Amino acid sequence: MKHYITTADWDQAALQEMLDLANEFKQGATSECLKNKSVALLFFNPSLRTRTSFELGTWQMGGHAIVLEPGKSAWPLEFEIGSQMDDVAEEHVIEAAKVLSRYCDLICIRAFPKFVDWQEDKQDKMINAFAKYATVPVINMETITHPCQELAHMQTIQEKLGNPKKKKYLLTWTYHPKPLNTAVANSSLLIASKFGMDVTLLCPNENYLLDDHYMTLAQKNADQYGGSFQVTHNIEEAYAGAEIVYAKSWGALPYFGNWEPEKTIRDQYKHFIVDENKMAMTNNALFSHCLPLRRNIKATDAVMDADYCVAIDEAENRLHVQKAIMSQLINQ
Amino acid sequence: MKHYITTADWDQAALQEMLDLANEFKQGATSECLKNKSVALLFFNPSLRTRTSFELGTWQMGGHAIVLEPGKSAWPLEFEIGSQMDDVAEEHVIEAAKVLSRYCDLICIRAFPKFVDWQEDKQDKMINAFAKYATVPVINMETITHPCQELAHMQTIQEKLGNPKKKKYLLTWTYHPKPLNTAVANSSLLIASKFGMDVTLLCPNENYLLDDHYMTLAQKNADQYGGSFQVTHNIEEAYAGAEIVYAKSWGALPYFGNWEPEKTIRDQYKHFIVDENKMAMTNNALFSHCLPLRRNIKATDAVMDADYCVAIDEAENRLHVQKAIMSQLINQ
Amino acid sequence: MKHYITTADWDQAALQEMLDLANEFKQGATSECLKNKSVALLFFNPSLRTRTSFELGTWQMGGHAIVLEPGKSAWPLEFEIGSQMDDVAEEHVIEAAKVLSRYCDLICIRAFPKFVDWQEDKQDKMINAFAKYATVPVINMETITHPCQELAHMQTIQEKLGNPKKKKYLLTWTYHPKPLNTAVANSSLLIASKFGMDVTLLCPNENYLLDDHYMTLAQKNADQYGGSFQVTHNIEEAYAGAEIVYAKSWGALPYFGNWEPEKTIRDQYKHFIVDENKMAMTNNALFSHCLPLRRNIKATDAVMDADYCVAIDEAENRLHVQKAIMSQLINQ
Repeated sequence: MKHYITTADWDQAALQEMLDLANEFKQGATSECLKNKSVALLFFNPSLRTRTSFELGTWQMGGHAIVLEPGKSAWPLEFEIGSQMDDVAEEHVIEAAKVLSRYCDLICIRAFPKFVDWQEDKQDKMINAFAKYATVPVINMETITHPCQELAHMQTIQEKLGNPKKKKYLLTWTYHPKPLNTAVANSSLLIASKFGMDVTLLCPNENYLLDDHYMTLAQKNADQYGGSFQVTHNIEEAYAGAEIVYAKSWGALPYFGNWEPEKTIRDQYKHFIVDENKMAMTNNALFSHCLPLRRNIKATDAVMDADYCVAIDEAENRLHVQKAIMSQLINQ
Repeated sequence: MKHYITTADWDQAALQEMLDLANEFKQGATSECLKNKSVALLFFNPSLRTRTSFELGTWQMGGHAIVLEPGKSAWPLEFEIGSQMDDVAEEHVIEAAKVLSRYCDLICIRAFPKFVDWQEDKQDKMINAFAKYATVPVINMETITHPCQELAHMQTIQEKLGNPKKKKYLLTWTYHPKPLNTAVANSSLLIASKFGMDVTLLCPNENYLLDDHYMTLAQKNADQYGGSFQVTHNIEEAYAGAEIVYAKSWGALPYFGNWEPEKTIRDQYKHFIVDENKMAMTNNALFSHCLPLRRNIKATDAVMDADYCVAIDEAENRLHVQKAIMSQLINQ
Repeated sequence: MKHYITTADWDQAALQEMLDLANEFKQGATSECLKNKSVALLFFNPSLRTRTSFELGTWQMGGHAIVLEPGKSAWPLEFEIGSQMDDVAEEHVIEAAKVLSRYCDLICIRAFPKFVDWQEDKQDKMINAFAKYATVPVINMETITHPCQELAHMQTIQEKLGNPKKKKYLLTWTYHPKPLNTAVANSSLLIASKFGMDVTLLCPNENYLLDDHYMTLAQKNADQYGGSFQVTHNIEEAYAGAEIVYAKSWGALPYFGNWEPEKTIRDQYKHFIVDENKMAMTNNALFSHCLPLRRNIKATDAVMDADYCVAIDEAENRLHVQKAIMSQLINQ
């Protein structure tokens, strides 16, 4: 039984199959693949797009989605195996996964890092425990990667740019008042490199490099799929010739859990904001972002409101790709 | 494309058309107007009736409702245009409205005032920003007016009193331990005057007058539709001859955001409670309230439990009128 | 009109009828008994199984469930009759029950005790007020008993042990860091005794006896249905010969609301944990628990992961029995 936890588990052809199916849904194809079936949506963190698109996508394919918020409307959950549960968690993932597998046909999880210890967070224990104990497929709604966003992003790129191979792709770090999750940034590298793009990661300095695991995967993908991967701290160099600019903020991994000094560093790089001047250096690039986005912090109003901003199209595509993912997992 | 943000945008005939449709729904008419369609319900504030009736009404007409709570289950939203978003809001209404318009066919908003600055709150910026950027119709689930409640109220009045024209309508302020929203009071004046009733506003003193904007609209409606509008601070005068009494509490606008001194004033008027003695002064009046209502604070148990209390009927009518509103907006 | 508030209101034959219907649902029988009907689910407390299984069960029978959380997404509710509502509650159960009865065809309530005054809590005022003022049937989703859990438990027992009569049933108290509700323990006694089992209650000492009301009902059921009921504080004696072990933690009633000294007592009985050694004393007993369960506090990993643990089957059965309960109440 296959889960959808990271695109690293799927090759380009398998992902393209899902993208093709997503395009069919977008063109009006219907499916009854979830008729009499149900989907559990577990949110440990807030959501607008993910929740709406999963709930609607399930309904459009004949099923029913249940939204649960562990720690709020549902019991707080423990994921450590063998734990003596004398802290706040009332229930273990083992039981939650097994019970939900009896009720539902798919289990979707949003579980952000705890932002205290990256070595701990990078193991992605919550969703991996669900995948281990569930007897139905598990879908990642964002943990330390965001593979649903990846497919929506790639669907948008293919719609706007055609074949992405060797197209110049820029992932730029931007400032944000809080140290955010690296999930979408990791995912950006994974998906762009898997489709053979020439990928550049722009970040202020070495502190803002992404985890080696994802950097290495990006290089491996580049080698396998005919693209390239490079890192730069130079804004002009990064934007020059770019055909798509993707923006995301994240906290510096070397300071993970030690966020006060990190903030001092981060505060020096507010000028990484995506603005019209930077976009003018590109090769008429598209701009996108996973949303939510703080306007005039990560990108200016002018960029967000420009015709080349495709963030809303990408958000719409969440619905179509997630229907494709659910359809593929339920029919395996 | 027409929104349903305030009844001031709709004339009596258009509202009567919605009331007639609501009556058909109440008599058992069915509609499939939301088949394969979905409705986003955004609640910035709590709800029992509104949420239940919108969610059910959508389902009864073949659609699916998504409930989102910005700031809780969904991201906190900014509505100021041009804002540099370095505060708590993670997302701007511009994106939220555009994205939800891609997923859903109607967007409904409950966004109460912030109770700090009335000049700010009275601009109703949140729902107006949604209306500006959404590409689907927007419905007001209570902001600084409550136009869904208005129609349910008028449906109830017509059911119980027949043609409302020249019927004596009393809106009475009542005490409440907290300074509440003027929305339902504003709405009470708007709808009663729009249907030509003889409207009296009873409040303790000038501090509790409603905003000029709504007082003026009430007078204009009275002039246009053949009713009248007067204000009094005299309880006996107000109740004498009334055929329907509608109760609501609100905080004094001149003290808006400065609620400590306001409370000292408000505490002197607990005797504005609707009780049997006051109801005995009327012309066998009906009593109603939008609910929720604090018993023995705003109205006594005896009044709430009396046969002349039609608040439960009015609450039921929320379902019927909202189906009518959604039906009209989706079919425009 | 019959509610489902406690199994004490239903005799064995009536409960068996629901169990038989639940088995039919489990075998794949379908029902459209909730077509065009809706169910209000009011949660004053968290839930995973109850919410998921009620929402899905409603949907599977053609209906729509509305989830409301009074005090969070919905208004806080008052249940005292005649109260002058100047505290936090914005709405009285009288109105909530009447209004929801206009919208919905069943009302389900989860309202745990407040843990301050047992004499107050044991009156179960919230759900009783709903039952008094609602004009549709009311179902208990756990208050001071948990009658839905009872049926799921008995369905599981019958599946695994056949006719439960004279089978040896052990309800064992276990340690938990917090003083929990006695609801499931009360329910355990009620249902096991109603089906003629030989019921033993094991608890550390007299402080942990259950309320006399439920102990007396258990003895009456034993007399009527041919089983027996005994209490012991001796672990070896309790486990010897048991054919099913049910575990639950609860706070000591004599210390109700005075939880600090109670914790000192409770902390001495961590060895009541269900482990392999204790299970080895039984007659190859099944183990079950209502879930959520803190692993290695109430039962060890080895017990939870053993083949004789039927807690997941019991959780699944929640779905089937609740469909049976809703079906019976809606068709009465």
